[in-house]
Amino acid sequence: MLKISEKSAAMPASAIRKLVPFADAAKASGVKVYHLNVGAPDIKSPDCAVDALIEKCKGMHHLSYTNSAGLIELRRDMVEKYYKKIGINIDVSEILIDVAGSEAFSVAMQIAADRGDEIIVVEPFYTNYNTFAFLNGITLKAVKTDIREGFRVPGIEAFEQLLTPRTKAVLISNPCNPSGKLFSKEELLQIGEFCRRHDLFLISDEVYREFCYTDEPHFSAINIPGCEQNVIIADSVSKRYNLCGARIGCMISHNKEVMAAAMKFAQSRLCPPVFGQWAALGALDTPQSYFDEVREEYIRRRDCAVEALNQMPGVFTPVPMGAFYTVAELPVDDAEDFAKWLLTDFRMDGQTIMVTPAASFYKTPDAGKRQVRIAYVLEVPELKKAMALLSEALRAYASRPAR
Amino acid sequence: MLKISEKSAAMPASAIRKLVPFADAAKASGVKVYHLNVGAPDIKSPDCAVDALIEKCKGMHHLSYTNSAGLIELRRDMVEKYYKKIGINIDVSEILIDVAGSEAFSVAMQIAADRGDEIIVVEPFYTNYNTFAFLNGITLKAVKTDIREGFRVPGIEAFEQLLTPRTKAVLISNPCNPSGKLFSKEELLQIGEFCRRHDLFLISDEVYREFCYTDEPHFSAINIPGCEQNVIIADSVSKRYNLCGARIGCMISHNKEVMAAAMKFAQSRLCPPVFGQWAALGALDTPQSYFDEVREEYIRRRDCAVEALNQMPGVFTPVPMGAFYTVAELPVDDAEDFAKWLLTDFRMDGQTIMVTPAASFYKTPDAGKRQVRIAYVLEVPELKKAMALLSEALRAYASRPAR
Repeated sequence: MLKISEKSAAMPASAIRKLVPFADAAKASGVKVYHLNVGAPDIKSPDCAVDALIEKCKGMHHLSYTNSAGLIELRRDMVEKYYKKIGINIDVSEILIDVAGSEAFSVAMQIAADRGDEIIVVEPFYTNYNTFAFLNGITLKAVKTDIREGFRVPGIEAFEQLLTPRTKAVLISNPCNPSGKLFSKEELLQIGEFCRRHDLFLISDEVYREFCYTDEPHFSAINIPGCEQNVIIADSVSKRYNLCGARIGCMISHNKEVMAAAMKFAQSRLCPPVFGQWAALGALDTPQSYFDEVREEYIRRRDCAVEALNQMPGVFTPVPMGAFYTVAELPVDDAEDFAKWLLTDFRMDGQTIMVTPAASFYKTPDAGKRQVRIAYVLEVPELKKAMALLSEALRAYASRPAR
Repeated sequence: MLKISEKSAAMPASAIRKLVPFADAAKASGVKVYHLNVGAPDIKSPDCAVDALIEKCKGMHHLSYTNSAGLIELRRDMVEKYYKKIGINIDVSEILIDVAGSEAFSVAMQIAADRGDEIIVVEPFYTNYNTFAFLNGITLKAVKTDIREGFRVPGIEAFEQLLTPRTKAVLISNPCNPSGKLFSKEELLQIGEFCRRHDLFLISDEVYREFCYTDEPHFSAINIPGCEQNVIIADSVSKRYNLCGARIGCMISHNKEVMAAAMKFAQSRLCPPVFGQWAALGALDTPQSYFDEVREEYIRRRDCAVEALNQMPGVFTPVPMGAFYTVAELPVDDAEDFAKWLLTDFRMDGQTIMVTPAASFYKTPDAGKRQVRIAYVLEVPELKKAMALLSEALRAYASRPAR
């Protein structure tokens, strides 16, 4: 009998998108759905990015491949105009343009670990780490954290306990999707020391670097002293400039062996998307004021969401210091059931909301079962309405008739 | 000791790009290099593609993700405006937009075969099939062909001989990169019958479908009767419209299980590049006259190259009926040495040429060792000069002093 591979049959479906059919059904019946479920910001992309792309298109004859590592002028300008400015000092040979952050961390994982090897992650973590680990036969081992402690990274003993001869790397996202947690410099130095001592790679997914809400600048893993050879950065251009659909990111490492391996992966898919590279070239001229405004806007949205959430009986969320997500604990037994119920049953003035159940961001069984991820990507007035809906929904859910 | 994974260390580097450093060195010393080594056409992209992209950019506020399967309007228009017109009748649910043909066939291979499984290919074949087989632990088994017979596909016994319980698919590229071979309808029916009988997938890489030089239209594998569930098509939008850098392609299958699995892979990388999708939407309005002109131009180039090659003593190439490549046998012991020598030693009027040694397109040891792939992607006057250089180089190479 003709059948698909066991791998593709067993591959996990996107937990984030599993509820989409229910949302589609709700919308089809005329219900307005507030989307707090995906990290798709509505912030305007910088004009300089779009203008640069249009200019290039006007002068275009045909669209060739670029170097597999990306346009040399893009790599050069990223080093000079962006990374230098934020204190990340790298050579052009230490950066490679990828098809968004997704390609960067998936290749980094494959460069660090073989089939049967293990990578340590800090819970909760971005769910696609799990997907790429699965596809490459890598096992993720999770360091537990506590939402009530703001997802603080525990002492290094928690990492040591997970260590086996097959451990090859630690993988973090900083700031973290889904929790919005920003790793402190101390936490990073501690993780770096652990990696150095045990000869592990430290893969640091920093796609939300420009979305930080503390007064100190973001501390990149690449600046951990003594870890120069261990660190691999996965970064996103499209995320930084609200160009999610451009699919441009990069991998950065001082480790020459890592970059040579990354180039082999890059050649196998020929080159990164060129229109997006052109927009990225233009985006590098984005003024600081743009980032300042975006930051202020997200702080307003975060404060709105966090305040509203913590005022709901039985709800708790820490104050996230980065990205545009927060994880909230709800007074429900099963957040996935609740999230589905929101779409299938709950209506207030013909409206409802969509949230992401957090269980898929955990490896530990049952962890996060009562939590949801909230993406605060709506403007404040809309966000307020969404929060009012959530509050009302929790009341209605608690008193719903037993089934 | 910190070290990269065995997989990434052992991963083969791109054979096509291996000679690039020697070409760079030649150019740095002032030598003009005619590139016959890469399939990067210089044909103008259709205005309607670029215009549509510019229009969309002008009206853009921010660039969101699209559906992981690609914009619904792009999928719909591709079905209606392109595939229907060429006799490929599919539903919108049977097409998924990919990050170029590369993603399409690499995902198709993973859907067809698990680690330890085998896929049958017809030699010579596109070298990146090898790369993705390696990355996924799949073994390629090669059906041999003969350049003197125009790479005709042998009788089905040749396929039967390679069959084992681990065989899961046959993978062809039609028209073929590197040979330019166009599979006849009879050859396809025969391969289809083999796949049907043994419950194998037939992965057909048809990215060069619009580059055919026979009078009959291209016969797609998806139209093999009785093979509806077996066939997976990998296609390219960016190749078809001379938009190589746009990185837009698609996978097509009537098999619902295959498409559901493809969607899981698609979700793991979020979405295909959106600027490229917009250009692809516009490209669908390209008039037939554009393809007719491109076809005539390639026929002129092909005839120029093939004629010149076959006039050189000891050189043989068949007349390719598709794509923009031909494989030529040269009167040299080792085509890779010769290709390198062209870049390091041979100069005529300060000029030389770059070709791709064909050995990497073969799985059988020593097969293709005396062959090179020629991409006829230069305009006729330039191509003539390149052929004159090759002719002179072969003479000089034969009489070079022993080392």
